[in-house]
Amino acid sequence: MVTPAMVTESVIVSFDKLELDCGVTLSPVECAYETYGALNGARTNAILVVHAFSGDAHAAGEGGWWSNMIGPGKAFDTDRYFIICSNVIGGCRGSTGPGSINPENGSPWAMAFPPVTISDMVRLQKLLIEYLEIPRLLAVSGGSMGGMQALEWAVSYPDGVAAAIPIATTARHSAQQIAFNEVGRQAIMADPDWNGGDYYGGKPPARGLAVARMVGHITYMSDASMREKFGRRLRTPDQFEVESYLTYRGYKFVDRFDANSYIYITRAMDSFDLTQRGSLPSLFERARTRFLVISFTSDWLYPSYQSQEIVSALRSRNADVAYCNLEARYGHDSFLVEVDEQTEMVRGFLESTFRDLERHGRLARSA
Amino acid sequence: MVTPAMVTESVIVSFDKLELDCGVTLSPVECAYETYGALNGARTNAILVVHAFSGDAHAAGEGGWWSNMIGPGKAFDTDRYFIICSNVIGGCRGSTGPGSINPENGSPWAMAFPPVTISDMVRLQKLLIEYLEIPRLLAVSGGSMGGMQALEWAVSYPDGVAAAIPIATTARHSAQQIAFNEVGRQAIMADPDWNGGDYYGGKPPARGLAVARMVGHITYMSDASMREKFGRRLRTPDQFEVESYLTYRGYKFVDRFDANSYIYITRAMDSFDLTQRGSLPSLFERARTRFLVISFTSDWLYPSYQSQEIVSALRSRNADVAYCNLEARYGHDSFLVEVDEQTEMVRGFLESTFRDLERHGRLARSA
Repeated sequence: MVTPAMVTESVIVSFDKLELDCGVTLSPVECAYETYGALNGARTNAILVVHAFSGDAHAAGEGGWWSNMIGPGKAFDTDRYFIICSNVIGGCRGSTGPGSINPENGSPWAMAFPPVTISDMVRLQKLLIEYLEIPRLLAVSGGSMGGMQALEWAVSYPDGVAAAIPIATTARHSAQQIAFNEVGRQAIMADPDWNGGDYYGGKPPARGLAVARMVGHITYMSDASMREKFGRRLRTPDQFEVESYLTYRGYKFVDRFDANSYIYITRAMDSFDLTQRGSLPSLFERARTRFLVISFTSDWLYPSYQSQEIVSALRSRNADVAYCNLEARYGHDSFLVEVDEQTEMVRGFLESTFRDLERHGRLARSA
Repeated sequence: MVTPAMVTESVIVSFDKLELDCGVTLSPVECAYETYGALNGARTNAILVVHAFSGDAHAAGEGGWWSNMIGPGKAFDTDRYFIICSNVIGGCRGSTGPGSINPENGSPWAMAFPPVTISDMVRLQKLLIEYLEIPRLLAVSGGSMGGMQALEWAVSYPDGVAAAIPIATTARHSAQQIAFNEVGRQAIMADPDWNGGDYYGGKPPARGLAVARMVGHITYMSDASMREKFGRRLRTPDQFEVESYLTYRGYKFVDRFDANSYIYITRAMDSFDLTQRGSLPSLFERARTRFLVISFTSDWLYPSYQSQEIVSALRSRNADVAYCNLEARYGHDSFLVEVDEQTEMVRGFLESTFRDLERHGRLARSA
């Protein structure tokens, strides 16, 4: 293959096939990805960054969803590390998803697309990492659904990743988290333009998708951050600023996201449950990965107790885990917007992990 | 007028007119109400119970929204007190609202119905109380939007009500509370069957209203109570129980609630802001009402700090206020479902208030 280089616009690589958890094999399957920084000669400085529900492969640079975390001198320092980010399977930003063409009939898959899971997402990433000829990742990191993928990496490929940084995430969705996702799905499916998922080439279910996104936005913010940002300020005599903001953001979302991907990806999140494969402690027994777990005090969508459940399980198996419940005001969005302390945590953790591996060829026990 | 008697099915009384805050005068205006228990000879034992967003005049007896709180020996003891409950203006359960006929053109008002406020609701209740020839209410009590009305009574008619029991409520909606309501409104208005509000006689916007109700339901419960009630249990291989429950409850709601009332009443809640008329302490300066304020630890929709803001304002003016932040698991729904402690609080408070008034003709300072 070509030696990996800086790829700051998504490129798409096609793989022969991807076997999904549901039993279906997608063939071929496409994966959109970007890379930032340079892979070192020993190929030991690669970090996979995994996106949250509505993210994509464009993590860094202008408009990148984690551009405040990835770049020269930043938490994921592109002067030192080679950063990879790809769009998940089921997505709508370059990787194969329900809006892709079903090779069997030449039409978009729509709701005939097979259900996907968090481990399917990780399996596609594994293909990409192998394609990039990286024997072991230095780290996998992401927030929210990205954190689920980081956990999945550590459990499924214990030898494939030296360190995992799951942020603002959970080992399984709670009833409340499922419920908020279900409302979004119902809003989409209630839109007549959704048409059972067959809207490609026609009018997308913009109103339903916008309503779904509005619900999401509320859950990403905190009560306090909404009060600070909007309070009870009016935009017009008949409209509060918060109403105008949500409506604007909701309809804006329609331009860049596919409603069927919304359904498929939220279902993947809801069905994710590491404990179905055994108790959390027993799952982490095989993990040879070092962990940094981060949660945020004001995150009520992925409350800190969910991260603490992961940390307790890891500690009960004497795994190498650092945990920080960061004081933050921005709710679930904190991992995207309130990154100063997060940067310090991640930078130090990556440095010591990389140093240990370089010096000793293995992970020393962190303090 | 007729001496008030037990009215356990809603009856409708028509008043000449009701002047609204917006400047419009509704004429005539109807008010659906029920009463439970008997008014004493001195007409001093009347309690007005005010309903929350989706409630109605049917508060007690079979299917009553507060039947666990109202009845013989209950918190609102019908052996001792005369309980009144009416449907709010803007509602759809007997009182005049957007689904009522506009006398000017013989068609339903729909979105031509004038905007209503919490004080409009209270003004209609005042007409009803005068019609029932009750010189002063012993108490006004309600949860959520009912609590807003209880506060409004104390501020607008300080001589008209001896005691107020606002529960799980606020003096003004936060940005987050407005946001959740706005999502519901947007879901309704996104439904093509809403048709700008003109759907009477045709198909109501069932899908939009159901989605709106689903959002509401999530906010009424707590993370913990949802986990207890549903967890991650499946109803079918492809559906979680919580999904099935929300969808069922959402569509069930359509049978008993009008989508335009949803819009009007949530707007009344969002626009409610006692502090627009002065600081909370200054507003309560005139209050001669005794207060019992109740909030619930797990209520994240109307968090305890909002009740505490009211209590602080009252205390700063040396008002007579008792406050309890009850340990409860059921979130905002606690005031409807977890009523044991609430019953003790309310019963004791009403007894001492009634006793003081009977013995001294005025309120003694409570302990």
